[in-house]
Amino acid sequence: MKELARKSKEASKKLMGLRPSQRKEVLEKMASELLKNADLIERENEKDLAYGREINLNQAMLDRLKLDRPRIEQMVAGVRSISEQEEVVGQTFSEAKNEAGLTIKKQRVPLGVILMIFESRPNVVVDCAALALKSSNAIILKGGKEAKHTNEVLGKIIHQSLEGMVPVESVQVLASDKREVINDLLELEEYIDVVIPRGGHRLIEYVTKNAKMPVIAHYQGLCHMYIDKEADMDMAINIALNAKTQRTGVCNAIETLLVHKDALPMVRDRLVKEFKAKETELRVDETFKENLNEDLITATEEDWKTEYLDNILSIKTVDTLDEAIDHIDRYGSHHSECIISQNQATCDEFLMRVDASCLMINASTRFNDGGQLGLGAELGISTTKIHAYGPMGAEQMTTSRYVVVGDGHVRN
Amino acid sequence: MKELARKSKEASKKLMGLRPSQRKEVLEKMASELLKNADLIERENEKDLAYGREINLNQAMLDRLKLDRPRIEQMVAGVRSISEQEEVVGQTFSEAKNEAGLTIKKQRVPLGVILMIFESRPNVVVDCAALALKSSNAIILKGGKEAKHTNEVLGKIIHQSLEGMVPVESVQVLASDKREVINDLLELEEYIDVVIPRGGHRLIEYVTKNAKMPVIAHYQGLCHMYIDKEADMDMAINIALNAKTQRTGVCNAIETLLVHKDALPMVRDRLVKEFKAKETELRVDETFKENLNEDLITATEEDWKTEYLDNILSIKTVDTLDEAIDHIDRYGSHHSECIISQNQATCDEFLMRVDASCLMINASTRFNDGGQLGLGAELGISTTKIHAYGPMGAEQMTTSRYVVVGDGHVRN
Repeated sequence: MKELARKSKEASKKLMGLRPSQRKEVLEKMASELLKNADLIERENEKDLAYGREINLNQAMLDRLKLDRPRIEQMVAGVRSISEQEEVVGQTFSEAKNEAGLTIKKQRVPLGVILMIFESRPNVVVDCAALALKSSNAIILKGGKEAKHTNEVLGKIIHQSLEGMVPVESVQVLASDKREVINDLLELEEYIDVVIPRGGHRLIEYVTKNAKMPVIAHYQGLCHMYIDKEADMDMAINIALNAKTQRTGVCNAIETLLVHKDALPMVRDRLVKEFKAKETELRVDETFKENLNEDLITATEEDWKTEYLDNILSIKTVDTLDEAIDHIDRYGSHHSECIISQNQATCDEFLMRVDASCLMINASTRFNDGGQLGLGAELGISTTKIHAYGPMGAEQMTTSRYVVVGDGHVRN
Repeated sequence: MKELARKSKEASKKLMGLRPSQRKEVLEKMASELLKNADLIERENEKDLAYGREINLNQAMLDRLKLDRPRIEQMVAGVRSISEQEEVVGQTFSEAKNEAGLTIKKQRVPLGVILMIFESRPNVVVDCAALALKSSNAIILKGGKEAKHTNEVLGKIIHQSLEGMVPVESVQVLASDKREVINDLLELEEYIDVVIPRGGHRLIEYVTKNAKMPVIAHYQGLCHMYIDKEADMDMAINIALNAKTQRTGVCNAIETLLVHKDALPMVRDRLVKEFKAKETELRVDETFKENLNEDLITATEEDWKTEYLDNILSIKTVDTLDEAIDHIDRYGSHHSECIISQNQATCDEFLMRVDASCLMINASTRFNDGGQLGLGAELGISTTKIHAYGPMGAEQMTTSRYVVVGDGHVRN
């Protein structure tokens, strides 16, 4: 692993010197190689899906794993869009001259070597490789065993695209599913500048505990939507349906709906009916169940803590805005939090007191996504407050340093 | 410690709601209380200095510890200048409407609770408390035992200034010098959002290894200056003298001077003479010593690795720019690195290949300082690439989140 990480560091130094046109050429090549090999990718992905069905992954997990033709085309479009984006490294900004004639400027530079540890979705390999090249970083990608075949073939295709233009070690895809591999990598702070774990509680905790280099955690999305007593109830129901069911296996879908007790009579029966039509399993508190004709599952403490990544929604009735905010404070994962209310003061209070990477007012949580928020593709959604909070695109994979140019200037 | 951290978190939530005028009032009060109590501060500081002399701290260390009248006035001026600075939290920016009419904006928000662990310089307490209040963060300050009395009295004076305006737990100064205190704090990721260790190798390594929350390291400054063969030699000598001796106990002073072999004959004798006049102890390599009349100490491997924080300078002769860059790559601490050359291509090569928070071309490393670079006061100089690389002011103590405002918008 040490040799692999050292080669990444070497590659990252070469990437620093790339011209914009070279970066573009590499990304275009990557896009066309991926498209050319779409059938091969689908065949390898089918192996992973077969294995997933064998070990009884749920429908949402299988959906995350799947890479069919439309999704491959979408992935390729993503690479091309990254290629077209403005340059994110090398530029200087905030240039100023001080009184003594000293020029002080900031310069955007790559982080160096990024280690990304992720689960499921194989498109992450391509998105992150493209973003890394755009930002002149070398990247080491360690995916989960459930996507082993797909990740491996994507790594090979990427290497074919890099050959002869940039060091192939700029993008290294690790298919081994051994824990020791991660352990070894987390020790190598000499070569790896930052590690980004993207996944559930166990992965994040493990990496945070063991990494010697800085960590930017991309934790799960345990997202909430709060329906205020002064909400537009039609809007509330429509957004709740979208935030839960438009795609269920994703981090910006909601897991828990918080309903103000005064809003409850106006939305309850319709929520039950509409979610039933979407085949969503509801798990609700006792207040919600009172005098209800349907027999719904009772939510437990465990439900408030769970990111289902599935077509399941827990619902809790709250007496006040305070209670809703306290619930989010206790169970939320600082990802996406939403309020539906027509009262501006209530929305402001929610904004002021809820701590998350993206807050939605009268809009679906599904908008917390690099593409939707204008970043192009994304590396993931950071739930760490430092460096980047929310979606990370190519620009968030850089840092800035000072460059001071004088003509013999000394300090008095 | 848990109760203390929990109170910091509570306080940080209150700080979020402060208006700019209230922030200003608190900072002005802090400045006047400090000035009013200047004699008391000096008396307490004298106790620390006496202890420092007793345990034989070197001159540079004692200088770092000292807080005399002029320095107190400077510290107070710092607080006032922070108070006058533009607001750094609450503002929204990058506001845009997407095609569907959804408003997407970013908002600058505080990090929450910052734990700062530092050594020596007691003015850090005041600088950091003021910066934390400016950025609406709560801060826990854990200083070294050598500054115990000074830190304690500064903490008390700050509390007097906060009382009745903001929760006094917004700034907590810990005077206990027990390791366990730090251990306990590093476990409390529930309440502490980021830890900033500012000091030497052992402190940084310890915190990085044990902290459960993100770390922004403010590591030592093992800074180099490289005199190129095409340097203006008068300028080179003048800047070397300034970078080493203008103040020796600071992180942005140079520790090692790298001299190109072709520059050596032009600068050697004058460097020896001028540094002798400044009472600087030189430790030089064999090439530098050849045919020299003076008997200088020979530098060892240990010297290349040492941040002296004292009036000592090591000098190494290099054959090429490459050798200079490799030396910096191997021994540097990513703090401040400097080249003296009239050749633009050489300077560009140095810029491209040297990785540090601040690079100087024909200027003294002493300029890598928040005040000099236009940030006002500074929390310290981050040698961590993520979040903030280089001096951290109030703005670098914030993060930004997304706020999305719709009118029933859902994702297709």
